[in-house]
Order: sequence, then structure tokens, then C-alpha cells
Amino acid sequence: MRYALRGGKRLRAFLVLESARLHGVGDRAMPAAAAVEALHAYSLVHDDLPCMDDDDLRRGQPTVHVRWDEATAVLAGDALQTLAFELLTDPVLGPAEARIALVAALARASGAEGMVLGQALDIAAETAPVPLDLQAITRLQAGKTGALIGFAAEAGARIAEADPAPLAAYARALGLAFQVADDILDVEGDAAKAGKRLNKDAEAGKATFVSLLGLAGAKTRAAELAEEACAALAPYGDDAAILCEAARFVISRES
Amino acid sequence: MRYALRGGKRLRAFLVLESARLHGVGDRAMPAAAAVEALHAYSLVHDDLPCMDDDDLRRGQPTVHVRWDEATAVLAGDALQTLAFELLTDPVLGPAEARIALVAALARASGAEGMVLGQALDIAAETAPVPLDLQAITRLQAGKTGALIGFAAEAGARIAEADPAPLAAYARALGLAFQVADDILDVEGDAAKAGKRLNKDAEAGKATFVSLLGLAGAKTRAAELAEEACAALAPYGDDAAILCEAARFVISRES
Repeated sequence: MRYALRGGKRLRAFLVLESARLHGVGDRAMPAAAAVEALHAYSLVHDDLPCMDDDDLRRGQPTVHVRWDEATAVLAGDALQTLAFELLTDPVLGPAEARIALVAALARASGAEGMVLGQALDIAAETAPVPLDLQAITRLQAGKTGALIGFAAEAGARIAEADPAPLAAYARALGLAFQVADDILDVEGDAAKAGKRLNKDAEAGKATFVSLLGLAGAKTRAAELAEEACAALAPYGDDAAILCEAARFVISRES
Repeated sequence: MRYALRGGKRLRAFLVLESARLHGVGDRAMPAAAAVEALHAYSLVHDDLPCMDDDDLRRGQPTVHVRWDEATAVLAGDALQTLAFELLTDPVLGPAEARIALVAALARASGAEGMVLGQALDIAAETAPVPLDLQAITRLQAGKTGALIGFAAEAGARIAEADPAPLAAYARALGLAFQVADDILDVEGDAAKAGKRLNKDAEAGKATFVSLLGLAGAKTRAAELAEEACAALAPYGDDAAILCEAARFVISRES
């Protein structure tokens, strides 16, 4: 479990802490930041399994089932998911009402109508008779990566028991920008910097934002989405400059 | 997910509903009963995977990875765990304080210091140089089956925000009785009635309560534990007669 949590960009934890700071609750958001990283780590350990994406490299190191074995990877992922929910019960996060709202939001984001749905659609796409179109890819990614990014960005508002709507709009654009950038990285990136195998989608003949929009079209779309994310932050004024920077970072990152 | 939840004894749901009835909150315990069954179903789907116990039969039907495939089994199990935590956020269960206490209790019972620990110890035992002794088997089972049975039995007290101590003592004896009975069933049972393969532990050369105590010794121990469970219910008087009956059922069941 500790090995699976090492490294990474910690983008989701950053989103939790920044959205909490925006709402004046930055000092009590850490368990939620840890929770979203534990949830994300569980999803990577299970996605890397031979029966799923069958990856042997993650964050520059062997994946959990390569370093140990498949049973250990299944169990470590399972217990990381449990840990995520346990972390959200930490009284540091505030009143029980706020904590139970976080639990409900994380469950919706990561379960059968969120992240797991996205992963199931992704696996189904591998054997689909025709490649997915732009609408289907967008739906798939909204679940696979968008939902958890949405939970992270909204978490600060939930801890403060404030309206999460502006951060939800920010996260929708950010999550999609993230995935378009991921598809660009898969084609153009440096595997050593990315810490994982690249070019997997093209080799598997899977539809991506790059295959559907072209490389230049995907880059334009990513830039539009990053600006859309920044525009959604308008209600927060200059206070949200760092979150806007994060959206621009997401489309220019190398890992 | 629905397929994995079908059938079974629903012992854990029964314990939730009965412990809730004892505390006068039987009318609002259903989401917690559903949650513990979803959590239990997730654990069975993952335990049955080829990389774990590699079982092809469960509750009289093909296991999920046999009926579909391994990726589907991993994802269905993952989403069943998520569903369990989502169910515990249902306002029907009462005040947010009680619901967050249920979330924390389920996480402790099922995570890296509870059920997943028990399963990891069980897998490690398969390659251990010497068979486990009685103390090690007891610890393994306290995690693998005992922790979730404990959560279920205590849930009614948590919903009512009452002291769960008497039900915790009941569950400790009941959980161990359950596992001793399971080991007896593995040797003496009828696979058609049990709905799963039997004699697996003996074939694998694994230590069980039967291998350590002998068949007659295990039966005596199971009966003692059932009476210990009933004795722990004394504070509830005749109201707890059904839970006492359940302990006696557990050691005489055929599935």
C-alpha cells in the first residue's frame, strides 16, 4: 500500500488543498487530500493488473503485481480503497455532516456510476466492433478520470459546507483537459519522464482524442479547455490564480 | 454486481437487522444491512479470483470471473465495496454522527487491519514453511470473517448511538464459531447444499480448526463458542433469543 502511494504528481491532493484554502479551511483538509490519493492509487494498482491494462511500469517503478504478485496487488488496492473512506471519517475534517457528504461524494465519483464505469467502458472499447466516437470517449473519460478530479476540486467547498458549483464547472473542464493532454503525452511524451509505457493506445488501435481530433486539433482543444477551467474560477477572483495555473500545467506536463 | 449479491444466507444482514431491532431502530437499519452484504459480496468475488483462492463455484453458480471475465470480477468487486460505503451515507440511518461512526467501523473491519489482513495472512499461510498453529489460525479468522461479523452485530448499537460492547462480545464468539463450523463443513459437508467446492483446505495441506483440534474437538469447540455467544447477550434478556438461536444455527448449518 505504501509503495503504491509513493511518487506521482499528487494533482488530486493539490486540488483538495487548494480548493480548501479558497474556502478558508486549508488547515483541516489534509485527510481528504490523503483520501483522494489513496483512492487514486487503488485504481492504478487494479488498472495495471494483467487482466486489466497489463502494465509493468508505473511512476518509474515496477507495478505492484510485478514487484510482488497479483494477489498482493488485488488486496493492496482493496485496502487502499477502504483507507480512502476511513480517512474521510477523521474529525479534523469538521462536523459529521460535512464528513458524510465527503463520503457520499467520493463513493459517487469512484463507484459504478463514476470511475469504475469509466474503466469498464474503456475495457469494453477494446473489443468494440468500431472505435468510439468523440461523445463516447468524452463519457468514458468523464468517469475514468473526470469524476475523481471533480471530487478533489469540490472537496474544499464540501469541507466548508459551501456551494461546490463553481469548482464543479472548473473540474469538468480540467478533467477533460487532463485526458486530452494524456492522449497527447501518449503519442509525444518521453517514457522516462512519464514513468510509464507510452504509445499503448495507438498500438491497441483504441480511439483517443488524438486519433479523433488529430494532434494539432487535440492541442487546440486542450488549450481551450484549460482557459474554460480558468473562466469557471471567476467567482473567486485572484484567489484562484493557482488553480488556474494548475489547469495550464495539466496541459503542458511531461508525466 | 447484482449477480454477486444474489443468494447466500444473508447472515450479516440478519445480524444488522436483529441488533437494530434490539435497540429499537429496526425500521431504519436496512441500508446498513445492504451495505454489509455488498461488502461481503465484494470480498467473495475477489477471493474467488484465479490469483487468490481460484474458485469456480459460489452460491451454487459459476463465480463472477468464470461467468464473465477477470477484469469484470475485479471491477464488480471494487464497485461493490464503494457501494457499501455509499449505502452507509443514507439519511434513513439517522444523524450524520451515527452514519460517520458506521463508515469508520466498516472501514476498520474490512481494511488492512481487518478483513484484508485476514485474507493476506491466509494467502501467506499457503506458502509458509510450517502449518499455522491455533493462535495464528484464530488471528487469521478474526480478520477474515470475524471483523465483518463484528461490524454487523454491532451496527444496531451504532445506529442507536448506544454501547456496542455486549454485541461485540457476542460477535467475537459467533465469528469464531462460524469459522470452526466452516472448517467442519469443509470436511463433512455436501457440496451441492454448500453451493461451493469443499475439501479445499485439506487438499492444500492448510491448517484448519479440524486439523488442529480433530473433528470431535472442533465440534465441541464450536458448541462452546455458540453458548459463549449466547451468554454475552445476557444484558438484553429474552429480547435477544433470536440472536442466540442464530449462534446455534451457525454451527449446524449446511451451507
